[in-house]
Amino acid sequence: MAHPSDSSAGSARASAGNRLDPWYSSYADRSLGMRASEVRSLFAVANRPEVVSLAGGMPNIEGLPLDFLAEMTARLLRDRGPKLLQYGGGQGEEEIRTQIVEVMRYDGIHAHPDDVIVTTGSQQALDLMTQIFINPGDAIVAEAPSYVGALGVFRAYQAEVIHTPMDDHGLIPSALEETLRRAEALGKQVKFLYTVPNFHNPAGVTLSLERRPQVVEICRRHGVIILEDNPYGLLGFDSEPLPALQTFDPDAVVYLGSFSKIFAPGYRVGWALAPHAVTQRMVLAAESAILSPNMMGQLSIAEYLKSYDWFQQVKEYRSMYRERRDAMLESLAEYLPSSTWTVPDGGFYTWVTLPEGLDAHAMLPRAVTHRVAYVSGTAFFANGEGRDYMRLSYCYPTPENIREGVRRLGTVVEAEKELVNMFGAQRRTPPGSTVEYPSTETI
Amino acid sequence: MAHPSDSSAGSARASAGNRLDPWYSSYADRSLGMRASEVRSLFAVANRPEVVSLAGGMPNIEGLPLDFLAEMTARLLRDRGPKLLQYGGGQGEEEIRTQIVEVMRYDGIHAHPDDVIVTTGSQQALDLMTQIFINPGDAIVAEAPSYVGALGVFRAYQAEVIHTPMDDHGLIPSALEETLRRAEALGKQVKFLYTVPNFHNPAGVTLSLERRPQVVEICRRHGVIILEDNPYGLLGFDSEPLPALQTFDPDAVVYLGSFSKIFAPGYRVGWALAPHAVTQRMVLAAESAILSPNMMGQLSIAEYLKSYDWFQQVKEYRSMYRERRDAMLESLAEYLPSSTWTVPDGGFYTWVTLPEGLDAHAMLPRAVTHRVAYVSGTAFFANGEGRDYMRLSYCYPTPENIREGVRRLGTVVEAEKELVNMFGAQRRTPPGSTVEYPSTETI
Repeated sequence: MAHPSDSSAGSARASAGNRLDPWYSSYADRSLGMRASEVRSLFAVANRPEVVSLAGGMPNIEGLPLDFLAEMTARLLRDRGPKLLQYGGGQGEEEIRTQIVEVMRYDGIHAHPDDVIVTTGSQQALDLMTQIFINPGDAIVAEAPSYVGALGVFRAYQAEVIHTPMDDHGLIPSALEETLRRAEALGKQVKFLYTVPNFHNPAGVTLSLERRPQVVEICRRHGVIILEDNPYGLLGFDSEPLPALQTFDPDAVVYLGSFSKIFAPGYRVGWALAPHAVTQRMVLAAESAILSPNMMGQLSIAEYLKSYDWFQQVKEYRSMYRERRDAMLESLAEYLPSSTWTVPDGGFYTWVTLPEGLDAHAMLPRAVTHRVAYVSGTAFFANGEGRDYMRLSYCYPTPENIREGVRRLGTVVEAEKELVNMFGAQRRTPPGSTVEYPSTETI
Repeated sequence: MAHPSDSSAGSARASAGNRLDPWYSSYADRSLGMRASEVRSLFAVANRPEVVSLAGGMPNIEGLPLDFLAEMTARLLRDRGPKLLQYGGGQGEEEIRTQIVEVMRYDGIHAHPDDVIVTTGSQQALDLMTQIFINPGDAIVAEAPSYVGALGVFRAYQAEVIHTPMDDHGLIPSALEETLRRAEALGKQVKFLYTVPNFHNPAGVTLSLERRPQVVEICRRHGVIILEDNPYGLLGFDSEPLPALQTFDPDAVVYLGSFSKIFAPGYRVGWALAPHAVTQRMVLAAESAILSPNMMGQLSIAEYLKSYDWFQQVKEYRSMYRERRDAMLESLAEYLPSSTWTVPDGGFYTWVTLPEGLDAHAMLPRAVTHRVAYVSGTAFFANGEGRDYMRLSYCYPTPENIREGVRRLGTVVEAEKELVNMFGAQRRTPPGSTVEYPSTETI
């Protein structure tokens, strides 16, 4: 066998790649499905200060008590340095797992720390779940639309994603039943339902209380485990959280939580709560992937939860995001009157349906030219759909910037509408050609 | 389809597992290869204070400047808190990648920060490399013996590991050539060579300067990329590092480094330096797995490298580990006269060959009863071999404890020898039955 870059008789695959990458012909099949988001280069532009980005999912953490954290961390390093700076166990420290159990009480969950695994953000928990459940070609049912970072993971493990519809009250149980029935009739191995029940990313809706036990019952009947992803659950604007899906059948749900939105993402600490045997399997996979989660982050967060009024901080986040949500909704009413949108009761996002004939994907470069950015709905579908939609986030920019951004967007949408009136609906590339890989900008 | 736990007509696989785990029949094939190390339960005993553990790979970090780190981290949080506590880019911060390039100069490497990816320990870099290169059934050539944590990753991705022999000067080039030739003749897709050239884990040997270009040339000729894992390279006792394999052909080598042994593992920060296109592919896989590496760890380490005499700390580690290595070698000469062992010039480990007929795997429970622990050689082979060997680590216990541990081990070995003399060689289970999954204790 020759060195790949020397090969002149390589396969089509090799010859396609070997000028730029001598190892192109060596990659695993799964790796060929990984590609950079089409919007990534746009984001480089979108991050310029003159652009209002309604695209990112970065939490606004300006309000964190830095002096307190500085002193707390210094004290931890002085008192427990050799533990903070050492390897830990693969499942995460019992100290923080015990406190995670307390945090989950807000979702009505009664759990044992032994069933919790600490992960490198809840993103890693998504990765581990997919790794241990998905053979190439297996199916995952996910909401339409669905979190772009989850779709990227599912794609990396060569899963087939089957979307199931939502309305303003979240997943539609009868439609879920039908989706599962149809998948089974086609012989598909549906391994899990992936769902974000609270303040959905990107749709901004929340699964109603009434539907929760129905969703659990349907999945149980079909032998499909539920992956309940709940990073925003404590960030409700009007009321305390609804009970988690997990509370209706702890044996049938893997629940994912994260400190990224209720505290800070820089530590990269999230978690999964799973049926005991599933947790143990996730621990094995996690040890293989990273040996152990970072101790600095785990023990810093444990100390913060113990010694700071962390729930007061959550309440401050709530009112800060609520103000921004209000700015977003008011601006949409003023500047995008011919669009419709969801009304989020918490979280970071609203989901906008554009006027008939407009294409959010095609419009994005023009929006960026007008110094406003969003994420095209196509990022949130595994099948190339979503051109009618855009995700607008209100978490990071100030209310003033949100208003200015939506005003600019209104100008762009009006111009597009005129184009459509003159020349008809925008050209649409065929479904399936535009699945995007997550970039950290589009969380 | 019924709920797995309700199914009475399940497959053999389902019925084997469903009493303990209702989801057993849903797992991916790859997940069935993951199992806990057989020695994990022993480690619970081995970690008791009365047991001298010569098993673990935990660095001794007692000497770190905790006051300095406390003040440095407090200052970072006060001055740059919103950056430390936020998401970062998937490739890692340029600030630390630039300094990683400086650290790699000690290995003779001239690199660009764009080609470096920061990972959650170098373990994650191992995982990403395997993920992007290995289809199930592909082959990886690795030293005999090889790092247990790498074998666990390779197993998780369903790779076939083909061992290639070492001697006191590391990988044997002629044997490597023969291994590759034979694998190709059998139609195997060898994707990479995995090697720890410096102060090998577990073998304690270092690849000689003379052999380095030969190994690179052989792999290049066979179209096999090299995965050069170098966590211990700066911890040489007698001399500065030999040039990395990477220096002989930067296009043909992915180099892994780590701050876990030259600074501290608690941050979980390691890195890979790869050909540019490979790095970009690793970044995509990393974003899918964890979005971004933790900012606290990255920026803390960057600041430590900038504002502290970190190389002086490395020199202190060297002399501390050297003293322990000496205690280990002297004790072996005194208490295990009928065994042989490698003489490490750096790093954490020596590799002991037991007297004829002894079985390190079978002996381990008896050793723990005698209050000393080690890792059986079987952990370091993918094929069940290794019973003649044990890995002894001298990194964590004090010199006094090392001597006492080896003394106890000597008692155990002598008792085993008597048993062998009376009853013949110990019963050996067939090869292939004892591949162990990494536990964080056996790094």
